[in-house]
Amino acid sequence: MKGLKTKQKVIEAAISLFNVKGYDGTSVREIAKTAEVNIALVSYYFGGKKGLLEHLLASFYEGYLKELSDALNNEDTDAATCLKDAVFRLLKYQENHDYLSRFVHREMTIDTMLVREVMTTYLMKEKYLLEQLLEIGIEDGIFKEMQVDFGVMHIRNLIIMPFLHPQYMRENFYINLEDESFKNDYFNYVSDVIETYFCRK
Amino acid sequence: MKGLKTKQKVIEAAISLFNVKGYDGTSVREIAKTAEVNIALVSYYFGGKKGLLEHLLASFYEGYLKELSDALNNEDTDAATCLKDAVFRLLKYQENHDYLSRFVHREMTIDTMLVREVMTTYLMKEKYLLEQLLEIGIEDGIFKEMQVDFGVMHIRNLIIMPFLHPQYMRENFYINLEDESFKNDYFNYVSDVIETYFCRK
Repeated sequence: MKGLKTKQKVIEAAISLFNVKGYDGTSVREIAKTAEVNIALVSYYFGGKKGLLEHLLASFYEGYLKELSDALNNEDTDAATCLKDAVFRLLKYQENHDYLSRFVHREMTIDTMLVREVMTTYLMKEKYLLEQLLEIGIEDGIFKEMQVDFGVMHIRNLIIMPFLHPQYMRENFYINLEDESFKNDYFNYVSDVIETYFCRK
Repeated sequence: MKGLKTKQKVIEAAISLFNVKGYDGTSVREIAKTAEVNIALVSYYFGGKKGLLEHLLASFYEGYLKELSDALNNEDTDAATCLKDAVFRLLKYQENHDYLSRFVHREMTIDTMLVREVMTTYLMKEKYLLEQLLEIGIEDGIFKEMQVDFGVMHIRNLIIMPFLHPQYMRENFYINLEDESFKNDYFNYVSDVIETYFCRK
């Protein structure tokens, strides 16, 4: 139990430091100091800073993809309802992991070997699931004919945008992601885009 | 003339290093070495690494905002056509400054004092221009009633997304931003979103 708590303290310290100083700008020493643990424990649990980064990326995407596949596995409903359910779950998942989400989304814009690996593992799966859903919807006459690639990018971006740019929302629109009204309003906006743009008239 | 060339060499070296190693992970020494200039010249021209970053952000957004206001200053046309023209110009502007665009968009997701300053200067202006355009379009009956805030975020994200995530496009969709077909197809997709989602039926 003590190990679990230490591990969690290291993870939280790393997320908060990476968000302010960037991954490259943060040392293992600072992480250990902020977490109030012995520096050797960071290597012991994660094999160093790179291992810690891998752990953060993988644990974020595993939870994220679980929400996405759970939404898509509902066979009692049509593609548009599944897509809205996926949007709802993924917004909520990111809200519950706001600092981690922001760090992961930003980290994924950097062109490194690790990011490429994570991309071909997790984002390929995300793309595959969304693509399949759009294609089934088109076949069933629920969604209109479209360039599916761009449809996937469009939906994905509507889902992740607020969490990639929380300070843009705050400084320019005075919107806090924690506000209950934001959650409802933004979900309604994305639902409206799905009904008006993606669905067949 | 020699000064201009040196300045340009430093800028190009900085953009390319920042993109691979991040701002925090890059030293002035490396920038000077890659640019093949004396390290003292980086301070002379830009007042060090932070000054260089400020210069990159400001020069990107000045050009970007010029394209946006030029598109919106056309009084002979309606709001939807202005918006499509703005999208076209901004996609082209980013294509012409692809490495810089990517770096700037990513840097803007980090929460630092400098980013907040740049945000309240340039992104506030971008928001104001897009907001005004959407409001005029709604008044004129061209655009439908909508939550204008989210409309601005939506359009902005469609415009910057490919340039923030070029390696996502490449690794997962096999799309290169330099391909002529991408430019046309993506512009057509965004135009379709404007006509189908933003415009009144």
